[in-house]
Amino acid sequence: MQSSFSKVEAISWTGTQLKLLDQQVLPSQIHYVLCSTAEDVAKAIQQMVVRGAPAIGISAAYGAVLAATEGQSISSLMAMLDMLSAARPTAVNLRWAIERMRKLTNEHVSSSAEEQVTASLKNKLMAEAVAIHQEDVSANQIMGQYGKKAILASSSAGHKLSVMTHCNAGALATGGYGTALGVIRALAETNELDKVWVNETRPWLQGARLTAWELTQENIPFVVGVDGAAAYHMTTNKIDWVIVGADRITANGDTANKIGTYGLALLAHHHGCKFMVVAPSSTVDMSLASGEEIEIECRGRNELIMLGDKMLAPENTSVSNPVFDVTPASLINMIVTERGVIENPTQAKMQQLFC
Amino acid sequence: MQSSFSKVEAISWTGTQLKLLDQQVLPSQIHYVLCSTAEDVAKAIQQMVVRGAPAIGISAAYGAVLAATEGQSISSLMAMLDMLSAARPTAVNLRWAIERMRKLTNEHVSSSAEEQVTASLKNKLMAEAVAIHQEDVSANQIMGQYGKKAILASSSAGHKLSVMTHCNAGALATGGYGTALGVIRALAETNELDKVWVNETRPWLQGARLTAWELTQENIPFVVGVDGAAAYHMTTNKIDWVIVGADRITANGDTANKIGTYGLALLAHHHGCKFMVVAPSSTVDMSLASGEEIEIECRGRNELIMLGDKMLAPENTSVSNPVFDVTPASLINMIVTERGVIENPTQAKMQQLFC
Repeated sequence: MQSSFSKVEAISWTGTQLKLLDQQVLPSQIHYVLCSTAEDVAKAIQQMVVRGAPAIGISAAYGAVLAATEGQSISSLMAMLDMLSAARPTAVNLRWAIERMRKLTNEHVSSSAEEQVTASLKNKLMAEAVAIHQEDVSANQIMGQYGKKAILASSSAGHKLSVMTHCNAGALATGGYGTALGVIRALAETNELDKVWVNETRPWLQGARLTAWELTQENIPFVVGVDGAAAYHMTTNKIDWVIVGADRITANGDTANKIGTYGLALLAHHHGCKFMVVAPSSTVDMSLASGEEIEIECRGRNELIMLGDKMLAPENTSVSNPVFDVTPASLINMIVTERGVIENPTQAKMQQLFC
Repeated sequence: MQSSFSKVEAISWTGTQLKLLDQQVLPSQIHYVLCSTAEDVAKAIQQMVVRGAPAIGISAAYGAVLAATEGQSISSLMAMLDMLSAARPTAVNLRWAIERMRKLTNEHVSSSAEEQVTASLKNKLMAEAVAIHQEDVSANQIMGQYGKKAILASSSAGHKLSVMTHCNAGALATGGYGTALGVIRALAETNELDKVWVNETRPWLQGARLTAWELTQENIPFVVGVDGAAAYHMTTNKIDWVIVGADRITANGDTANKIGTYGLALLAHHHGCKFMVVAPSSTVDMSLASGEEIEIECRGRNELIMLGDKMLAPENTSVSNPVFDVTPASLINMIVTERGVIENPTQAKMQQLFC
């Protein structure tokens, strides 16, 4: 499917393959990876050819379609769904998308008593993957408007807004348009935006590489700084809102997102910048009571101390490379989802919207 | 001169030239730059062949010796001292060292009425540069012991200490031994140290490149993390102290140091980690009332968005690259200098020690 809402198309279906814009090499190369099997998709997720919680979920859904080869056994399909679901641990959207595909398969099997994948099941899975993709784009559009409205309602009129973002929660991280960048796009569309402060987001540089690239495509003014300069920029510039995406939101509003988000939320709180999380309801995991229960993925040392084939640190350097952290709900002013906006999130407010 | 206190010798005088360990290419290359003129030294300071406030001051002092060519006019020497003094703006040690050289020159001129640089003046300048270098190494040694004693006095006994540091305030940044890393070395020498959390320190990666290299040389256990992971590491590990160096300390105890330090101090405060600044008295600038008066150097965009010849962000990306920030005295538990330790710094306590 085509997204008409932004110029960036990171995920598309060719008819037989999943086509992913390779986020490992942006912005220096515009390169696409074609996935022909579920294993290809799992590998692309692990290697971060595709990243961003919603984009991972959508890709995995198409991966399930690739897993559904006609004539293959249902149990083999289910094993591939498990394999896709385990590709990365922190973002819940991945498991949520695979759960939808699994449920559909189970329903089909119990109604038809088939033991093999049929053309009919494959068609159903295809339609579900497209639905997951389309729903995400629609959710982003709705969230963009909700987030914008909430920001304008809480800001004193008369000045254009400066916002800061971390990582990439844009079209590249989603089905299209973006979550945090969706709100930023919505603000820019009606000329309410002064500029975006983009934290480069080490170690993977999603900010400097991906968010900067998306904002360049859209002619939205931005400035890139190192993550360590965020506090300085908050003292020297009026930054109204910090706006980020999410990888998992628990029942009390605690939010896992890219490493550095938690510290940024503390700094925002100290400097009087408001803090907004934008994520579709597929990111909400009501089965976890709080952020303490979220598994934080730690990735390899080379992502941190190598850049391309250049070694940045001495050999044998020990590295700690957690790639997510958890921001407690108490530091979040608003959670924006396509179901509505929660101010000062609590368990009760989350329950009202998501149960 | 040789420093016997650590295995790293970043600054040495060959007899006719200043020999600098090139900090631009560490740790992948051990390369030395030989400076034969004051211009060479100014260029090495600007390009960060040598960096770290005390190391810059010492290098500039040797640069003044190189500027003092016999038979040359005193006014030409003075112009070269001005040029050296202006090489970088934030660290006060540079100006402090050149001021010592200028004062000596003025005294010599007024007592001898010479209008040319004589062998006698050149010898005096040489002796002064060596004194500045030696005093710095001695100061580091003293501070190492003061800092260690202060930390042990304030910690409950029974566990080895975990500390976090930012940037490089070690032998590479000083005449030898180091300021923040001097305290860390002192703790390691008597087996009081568990490990050092090293923030990689973007954009120049002084932590991952230089501090990791020094700690490797000394077999001190350490772990490198991205700057954005500091808050996460403070929640998942007991980190007792954050220990950093300084580029300028004003009359009220406000401290300029590497970008990211201010945010780190806020995070430390929030997580109950104590925060220590270690710097020789040459870093103290009692002429400035507070940190608001410190000029913050902003460096070029390529330091942030290029690594070697690899472009990390899209072309035409706007960048904000302040390389220092100011930590208010209220976030600093201790300032350690060779003159003594100030707990919870205030203007009155600073005045007592430095006026």
